[in-house]
Amino acid sequence: MADMLSKSRKAKTVSNVLSATKLSTRNNALAEIAHMLNANKQAIFNANKKDIARSEIEGIAMPMIKRLKFDESKLQAVIDSINTLIQLPDPLNHVQINRALSEGLDLTRISCPIGVLGIIFESRPDALVQISTLCLKSGNCALLKGGSEASLTNRVLFDIINQASVYAGLPQGWLALMENRDDVKAMLSLDKYIDLIIPRGSNEFVKYIMNNSNIPVLGHADGICHVYVDSYDDIDTAVAVCVDSKAQYVAVCNAAETLLVNEKAAKVFLPALKKEMDRANVKLLGCKKTCSIIDIEYANDGDWDTEYLDYIMSVKIVSSTDEAIVHINQHGSGHTDTVLTTDEETANIFINLVDSSSVMVNASTRFSDGYRYGLGAEVGVSTGKIHARGPMGMEGLLIYKYIVKGQNHIVADFQSGKKKYTHIDSPKIY
Amino acid sequence: MADMLSKSRKAKTVSNVLSATKLSTRNNALAEIAHMLNANKQAIFNANKKDIARSEIEGIAMPMIKRLKFDESKLQAVIDSINTLIQLPDPLNHVQINRALSEGLDLTRISCPIGVLGIIFESRPDALVQISTLCLKSGNCALLKGGSEASLTNRVLFDIINQASVYAGLPQGWLALMENRDDVKAMLSLDKYIDLIIPRGSNEFVKYIMNNSNIPVLGHADGICHVYVDSYDDIDTAVAVCVDSKAQYVAVCNAAETLLVNEKAAKVFLPALKKEMDRANVKLLGCKKTCSIIDIEYANDGDWDTEYLDYIMSVKIVSSTDEAIVHINQHGSGHTDTVLTTDEETANIFINLVDSSSVMVNASTRFSDGYRYGLGAEVGVSTGKIHARGPMGMEGLLIYKYIVKGQNHIVADFQSGKKKYTHIDSPKIY
Repeated sequence: MADMLSKSRKAKTVSNVLSATKLSTRNNALAEIAHMLNANKQAIFNANKKDIARSEIEGIAMPMIKRLKFDESKLQAVIDSINTLIQLPDPLNHVQINRALSEGLDLTRISCPIGVLGIIFESRPDALVQISTLCLKSGNCALLKGGSEASLTNRVLFDIINQASVYAGLPQGWLALMENRDDVKAMLSLDKYIDLIIPRGSNEFVKYIMNNSNIPVLGHADGICHVYVDSYDDIDTAVAVCVDSKAQYVAVCNAAETLLVNEKAAKVFLPALKKEMDRANVKLLGCKKTCSIIDIEYANDGDWDTEYLDYIMSVKIVSSTDEAIVHINQHGSGHTDTVLTTDEETANIFINLVDSSSVMVNASTRFSDGYRYGLGAEVGVSTGKIHARGPMGMEGLLIYKYIVKGQNHIVADFQSGKKKYTHIDSPKIY
Repeated sequence: MADMLSKSRKAKTVSNVLSATKLSTRNNALAEIAHMLNANKQAIFNANKKDIARSEIEGIAMPMIKRLKFDESKLQAVIDSINTLIQLPDPLNHVQINRALSEGLDLTRISCPIGVLGIIFESRPDALVQISTLCLKSGNCALLKGGSEASLTNRVLFDIINQASVYAGLPQGWLALMENRDDVKAMLSLDKYIDLIIPRGSNEFVKYIMNNSNIPVLGHADGICHVYVDSYDDIDTAVAVCVDSKAQYVAVCNAAETLLVNEKAAKVFLPALKKEMDRANVKLLGCKKTCSIIDIEYANDGDWDTEYLDYIMSVKIVSSTDEAIVHINQHGSGHTDTVLTTDEETANIFINLVDSSSVMVNASTRFSDGYRYGLGAEVGVSTGKIHARGPMGMEGLLIYKYIVKGQNHIVADFQSGKKKYTHIDSPKIY
């Protein structure tokens, strides 16, 4: 706790210094990080081998060990993304408003970093590099907590990034690594020093963070995504979108969990669906009507609110698009929902009335992703309704400040009528 | 509690319907509201007279009774602002991103309402009209709680606005009025139905809301604003900015509470300041050094963290701009701080390093206001670092959603290399 307090207080103290650094300083720091990661790659690989060996002894599942791996190709990938980041224009000091309030009294609004971010991420050590360099480019201090499986790799990566960036002129303390679970608990009460928490992890973990902190949290607990099959020209491609939404990668938040089928399509569609879902090893659970058409197990009430993250999908027959929309808004998590339809009006109704961060027509829910949307690196996905919604790129790490420059202007002169507000905007500069 | 639960659940249920209404429907509703307010003005005035009579019997202070008053001129003012609101372009469905992800797979990002807002405001009944019509124009459902002093006026105004808007085609339940303190308490736990709370009221009240809800809160508890006097050409205008910042209206969040003076300016500046502050009936409290120059009482440690909202100001001598900045970032509330200086570099350092929503140079802190900034109606002022910062206009009531339209596109085709992301942006439409 004392350690966490001092790290976050230090970060808050230097956050305005980091925020005021020039683009060239931040870019030089990024270049130095890329250079030092490459120069110290053996130390990184050695630490990573120890993490993997320990995890294997501890019997950690293969997919997680695969994600834990940090080798030459992972190194090259993170160095490539650092170089891409260097090429990006400065996200800071972008003029959003440039307005004369009155003669000699000027208002500007410029983009600036949020300040101090607490970021908790999963087992992949490359996430540490990606997140800390995104924070650097956007001028944000970062308090990082990675998965304990990757602790040795994370420590080496952190030391390299921290030393290289401070060497290049960033303020000591802008970046900190937390190494145990108690640090996360301590973080939640430090709303005086931490401006935003971005948690990535299991539902329960994210919910715990959201329910136990006064600090704003951006993230998503659940990803209960729906596919609603209204109508289709070609049954095979319609089934393929359902299979892709469910089974292309089941362990992620944008995988679909529930399929809604309009009753007018159900009799023909469901048998074709079952055939392909069987091939993809997806177990279907159905409502009563569904089970009268295809031979699958019954879903229970809880299934409509369950994120399986597995080869399981619940299926329900609805009598109308309205019923589908009501079901989605009630049981969904506001993440991503898609309609398959040949009818433009149905598509528009679905787009307008489904209250989710991503609403799709004739496309797989799996497209809902920062990289696929072309947002650059994805910081996380938010199912909240303020600040950033859906896949969140660097834009999500920014806010703005108002700057007023006058010539000793006083409000009393405007109240008395001696001076007047003009509010003349200058053309925007792009 | 049961009543609050049903009102917020109902609002959530109809929020997507309100969000999908056409601009013409929302504008017609605004026109109908303006018409009905005028047609029912006697009922409003009568209710208001009863509120005022009751408040006078209860011995409520004159300034508050003045704010409570809703007469012909207040009516005309709210009708004027409704007409201004009707003229504004649609804040919804504004295209922010328009990008081809791949052939036939298109992404758009459009502005949309946040959803259901809980808004708690002070005694002025005109605030009820202003806030509910802003929510209407921006497609947000609103759960309103006004000051109890204005309860009869609020009830009449609410009934008129609610009936007129539903008559004009808005969904019943989009607007609700809460009438007792327990409703506010109940609201804080309804994060399933309420997307954002905007509280306006005393420090303690706003802090209580922020500390007792998982719902995001936008607002400000403290307004501890600073004036830092570095240097000046003309002492009279410099003193005038200090007096205006403090005393032009003491009961508001953008009034200054602490004056910092560079030691090189102190000996000449402070006596001139004291003379004018005496005239303005402002009591000064000083640090040790200040008290050795002018004859005022000592400030204690707590004064640097106190929002007086009164004719009192604490004064401290600092040895450098850096010391002033450190003091402001430590003791300020991130609201508004101003520097008086003739030196451009000092101005830039102050702008860059002071971490507040509004940072000013040679201007009174009192300019920090949505109307003065030309933002249109002000919903509130936020000292938080996410979503909206500083004076918050209608923009603060908006978020966006992503819409993807495909032709049965699946992610598997992109993973296999069969298809490629192109990410071609269309020119923006203004």
